[in-house]
Amino acid sequence: MSSLIKDLEGLSLTHEAPANNEEWASILAKSDVAKFAGPYELTKVLVFKPKTAKTATPVPVVVVALNSTQTASNIVAKAAGVKEPRLANKDLINEFFGTEPQNVSPISITKENASKLKILIDSKAAEKSTLLAIHTDSNAKTAFITGDKLIEAYESIAADVTVVDFAKEAAAAAASATPTAGSGADKSAKSGSAGAVAKASANEGKIDGAALIGITSDKELDFPGWYQQIVTKAELLDYYDVSGCYIMRPGSYSIWEKVQNYLDTRIKSIGVQNAYFPMFVSSRVLEKEKDHIEGFAPEVAWVTKAGQSDLEEPLAIRPTSETVMYPYYAKWIRSYRDLPLRLNQWNSVVRWEFKHPQPFLRTREFLWQEGHTAHLTKEAAAEEVLQILEWYAGVYEELLAVPVIKGTKTDKEKFAGGLYTTTCEGYIPTTGRGIQGATSHALGQNFSKMFNIVVEDPEGSDKPKINVWQNSWGLSTRVIGVMVMIHSDNKGLVLPPRVASNQVAVIPVGITAKTTSDERDAIINGAKNVEKTIGDAGVRVFGDYRDNYSPGWKFADAELKGVPLRVEFGPADLKKNQVVAVRRDNGVKTVIPIASLADEIPKLLETIQADLYTKAKKQFDEHIVPVTTVAEMTPLLNKKNILLAPFCGEEECEDSIKETTARRDDDEEVDEKAPSMGAKSLCIPFEQPELKEGTKCVNCDRLAKAHTLFGRSY
Amino acid sequence: MSSLIKDLEGLSLTHEAPANNEEWASILAKSDVAKFAGPYELTKVLVFKPKTAKTATPVPVVVVALNSTQTASNIVAKAAGVKEPRLANKDLINEFFGTEPQNVSPISITKENASKLKILIDSKAAEKSTLLAIHTDSNAKTAFITGDKLIEAYESIAADVTVVDFAKEAAAAAASATPTAGSGADKSAKSGSAGAVAKASANEGKIDGAALIGITSDKELDFPGWYQQIVTKAELLDYYDVSGCYIMRPGSYSIWEKVQNYLDTRIKSIGVQNAYFPMFVSSRVLEKEKDHIEGFAPEVAWVTKAGQSDLEEPLAIRPTSETVMYPYYAKWIRSYRDLPLRLNQWNSVVRWEFKHPQPFLRTREFLWQEGHTAHLTKEAAAEEVLQILEWYAGVYEELLAVPVIKGTKTDKEKFAGGLYTTTCEGYIPTTGRGIQGATSHALGQNFSKMFNIVVEDPEGSDKPKINVWQNSWGLSTRVIGVMVMIHSDNKGLVLPPRVASNQVAVIPVGITAKTTSDERDAIINGAKNVEKTIGDAGVRVFGDYRDNYSPGWKFADAELKGVPLRVEFGPADLKKNQVVAVRRDNGVKTVIPIASLADEIPKLLETIQADLYTKAKKQFDEHIVPVTTVAEMTPLLNKKNILLAPFCGEEECEDSIKETTARRDDDEEVDEKAPSMGAKSLCIPFEQPELKEGTKCVNCDRLAKAHTLFGRSY
Repeated sequence: MSSLIKDLEGLSLTHEAPANNEEWASILAKSDVAKFAGPYELTKVLVFKPKTAKTATPVPVVVVALNSTQTASNIVAKAAGVKEPRLANKDLINEFFGTEPQNVSPISITKENASKLKILIDSKAAEKSTLLAIHTDSNAKTAFITGDKLIEAYESIAADVTVVDFAKEAAAAAASATPTAGSGADKSAKSGSAGAVAKASANEGKIDGAALIGITSDKELDFPGWYQQIVTKAELLDYYDVSGCYIMRPGSYSIWEKVQNYLDTRIKSIGVQNAYFPMFVSSRVLEKEKDHIEGFAPEVAWVTKAGQSDLEEPLAIRPTSETVMYPYYAKWIRSYRDLPLRLNQWNSVVRWEFKHPQPFLRTREFLWQEGHTAHLTKEAAAEEVLQILEWYAGVYEELLAVPVIKGTKTDKEKFAGGLYTTTCEGYIPTTGRGIQGATSHALGQNFSKMFNIVVEDPEGSDKPKINVWQNSWGLSTRVIGVMVMIHSDNKGLVLPPRVASNQVAVIPVGITAKTTSDERDAIINGAKNVEKTIGDAGVRVFGDYRDNYSPGWKFADAELKGVPLRVEFGPADLKKNQVVAVRRDNGVKTVIPIASLADEIPKLLETIQADLYTKAKKQFDEHIVPVTTVAEMTPLLNKKNILLAPFCGEEECEDSIKETTARRDDDEEVDEKAPSMGAKSLCIPFEQPELKEGTKCVNCDRLAKAHTLFGRSY
Repeated sequence: MSSLIKDLEGLSLTHEAPANNEEWASILAKSDVAKFAGPYELTKVLVFKPKTAKTATPVPVVVVALNSTQTASNIVAKAAGVKEPRLANKDLINEFFGTEPQNVSPISITKENASKLKILIDSKAAEKSTLLAIHTDSNAKTAFITGDKLIEAYESIAADVTVVDFAKEAAAAAASATPTAGSGADKSAKSGSAGAVAKASANEGKIDGAALIGITSDKELDFPGWYQQIVTKAELLDYYDVSGCYIMRPGSYSIWEKVQNYLDTRIKSIGVQNAYFPMFVSSRVLEKEKDHIEGFAPEVAWVTKAGQSDLEEPLAIRPTSETVMYPYYAKWIRSYRDLPLRLNQWNSVVRWEFKHPQPFLRTREFLWQEGHTAHLTKEAAAEEVLQILEWYAGVYEELLAVPVIKGTKTDKEKFAGGLYTTTCEGYIPTTGRGIQGATSHALGQNFSKMFNIVVEDPEGSDKPKINVWQNSWGLSTRVIGVMVMIHSDNKGLVLPPRVASNQVAVIPVGITAKTTSDERDAIINGAKNVEKTIGDAGVRVFGDYRDNYSPGWKFADAELKGVPLRVEFGPADLKKNQVVAVRRDNGVKTVIPIASLADEIPKLLETIQADLYTKAKKQFDEHIVPVTTVAEMTPLLNKKNILLAPFCGEEECEDSIKETTARRDDDEEVDEKAPSMGAKSLCIPFEQPELKEGTKCVNCDRLAKAHTLFGRSY
């Protein structure tokens, strides 16, 4: 809010209306409060899209309210007589208002669009005595009008206006709310305690009063909505007009570059070389290994035309490159002396999934690296599989501050066509689901038999030829999504310092209308010196000296973007030769003498990095629950746990566990948006508790082979 | 050859035949020379595929000859009665012999395949008195047989054998050869002097006596064949089973990584950020800018299916990303404060060209970077265009030692939909053609108008909105092809030290059968110390201590792969505390004391880098010829020149020049494989000779606007 107040203070009160909005210019010019005189109310405008038949044109509901009024969507639904109103997306707002969501203001409603909209006005904003401060254009200009004049203006352009007492309606809704209440808003309520659900029915997971630049959905109450806002508002990515594809903006790509650098250096240290194979693969080659292609066939994108011509043979876009590469491995590997052959590529692959796409986690095109190696012996291959997995875990734990559990996949979950799959598995506390982090596969000799990759036995050419032992291993941009889901909060992104492009934001503060020009210069120059000192210590730092934003706005912006540390520098700091450092992860403030900056800031960043990991590790550890009977599983899963169970390892038993744990338990809330409600095996952890002799499988009468992690998962 | 001798010395003479080759095992066992006794001849086996109707199965011609015999393909043609025999590719050899080309030996001809082959035996190898040393399997084993026994063996398996006196035939062919001789071999003769052509008709551009691991086509006489061999045998790339797509092996990808590092650091220094946009684009968006899409439409690859389902709307794979990105630029750029917006991506694009593909130069999928930026003013955009071009020229000149000429494209050749295009243009001396190196485009406001990328004037919102000024700029893996074509020679690749993964190869020499174990250890350890000293000086060095190859083989291998400097270390060097360094580019040997290695080796590498550039620059400079009349152009182009001509700049005049210079000139040799025989404008060089007032265009009566470079080009 402080930025608006600042705007008001600095602006002339004669509003300059946009050229295409003459009616409004004239209305505001005539408004008898054009002379600013005393207490006023900040306003907000929200645009909702009701649930509409696909073929019908939606009628957006525009809510004009005081900034302080909670405008829950269930009340919007009731007042406007519509179903399941959701905050409209940018495209719809562009279509109806010709502008971006953040630019919609009370005067965005014009003669041209009024007939296509429903308007709800907060009763508190509709009164003659209320002086409304409204943004008029791009948040840069402010005008004033009283509530009654605003309604008069709307009526003059034949708008469909309803005045709503949101506070009264909210009280009534809260009184009648129960976990099983049937209102439209309830449908999106997430699993959780009954109390949380009641809260959700009142405000549908929206954070009322959240700054417009910030996150307006609550992480606990509307996790999907929150996640979508985080990734877009923190400018990690943007939605693209091809469904399931996303734009990786510099905010996320720079994290990917840090991951690349971490891994690339390490894999090169063991002799892996980078290469690039074509993205196209003929169906004949793609289908060479049957088990393998069965896993991918339904998701393969096919190129059938070039220019105006049909291709003779359709070409697949690689979903992964085993079959692209291995015919050439057969050609290049002519002797055991050519082994090991270790190639890696940083590329994109395409899997046309028809499941609900999720930014970073499930996308139709994604970036990854895929390593493909060939070895003379099973042992050499096995050693590499584990070395790579160790580095994958390092990406999560050392870079992204995300704890993972390393283990082996069950036969059911292993890579199709491979021998065994190792994995590191993460955990999303908010949803209580496991998530596969990255996998390192021992392919055995299966592919080398299919593609005839053989060498002579080093012992002599009279011995039978040896099929090489192969591995493949991949880590994708999914790592970014996992990191976001775990650390970020309702203020925005939280970035571990090691992957943050900007580790520190230096923000000058305390410059007011009364500050003299000399004082102002001293503060700005002081801040720039602070920035330089921190930068010289090897820290990635930037100073935010923009003069069109208030410090409060800059704080919110840095918080939204996940900058790990904010360093404030104002008049008091200038006097005392100090700064105030504020941690993004926990808000803790520390005063640091300027003389200690070069030591303290890097230390503080490492502390933040470590604390983020420790916090996430604690959450993970507390939600790993040992179980011995299948009956315990569903209630514990519903409490957001991952389960460690003795397990026989049989595929049919695993299917049975999935089915049992997917069953609706009427005493429990059920998350209808879960991709799968049943528990899957996540991995057989390398670190095993003792398995006493004779221990039975959690779900059948067979003996357990090992403790296995089960969980609902992404 | 030395490796074979070494093999002989070390091997038992009882041949162990491969299991699948019992006849041969028995023949060799019975051979009365199974006891090795004195002078023998090394043999070679070459497999040719004659020109055959596409539907017919080819009958390969197998030539078994002494290693020292020249076996020119025109003689093979005549003796076997076939047309245009070419060295068979790996697939064909695999099909007929079930092994790789380098493993084909005299005993690869068996009962099973004999009826499908024609066999030519060198008369020198067919004599009873000649003891032949033959490889029997994977080059690792050697057996001995006399010529008459070999022929007897072939006859016993009903092979079609002809004895040929190659030396006599070659003399006869040389005597009758003329530039216009009509033999099959002549058809592939390349442009060049009449003398060179005569040479070509005798040996068809093949390098007789070239080691089998090395290049067997001559750069001057068979440039396309030479280039294909260089890129594959030096392991830069491999041909892929989708036409026009190639595999970038570590040999070339590592060069690309160095180019990436060079450019990425520089563009980031001016605030460019990396991002990644999806590879798919809907036809609606792709076609938004008409001029632009016209240039690309015939080459666009279309995805129409996913799994078994047809897509609702076909999706293009990006040929370039202007239309992919700019709708989002319109969304993200909300204020002049958001400018400049500078994004870059390292990605692959697909242009389904139907012209003849060329590794690195013209491929259907290729790697590049594409930068896309938006600026408030034309001036800011123009400044960046030139800065980027400077760095592109730097990639060529500083990294790849390739001279380029910077300039502006004519209107005819500029980027479709842009304002103007700047370019750096290279020159391939062997073909005398120009090649576009990389382009940096000023797009002007054309795209920002199409995509509505506007900001308010900083002067005030009452001023008209401003369409942003955009640039796009790209540099691709083509750079590698240009580098290869310019520097490499008949021994293989020549790499400028700055892009060589291995800058120095340390090779121990002088170890013979008489060397004691202690002496051997001293040499190997000495070489390893040399390697360490050089490595510690920051040089990328490797030691080649493989014990299954002779020093000569290692020399040839390092030369083939383009290692800039070979460092030999033998018994004499051990005594004198020195090494012998041999430059790849010019073969010059230098003795360097070990104490000076850390200083001298890096210096020598920089000298090589500089000399490569200087040599290429001289070649380029000597072939830029000023012309004032169009009549001069064709003969000068035929002499491999690039022409600098005063030019009016009109498109129709440029078309006319192209047509005129494409005309066949009967007095001159004509290169029938040229993609275009007519001269195109390459660029209007920034560095202009004085243009005297009143100077006419080289081709019409209009006044010349500037000197323009014309050339045949890739």
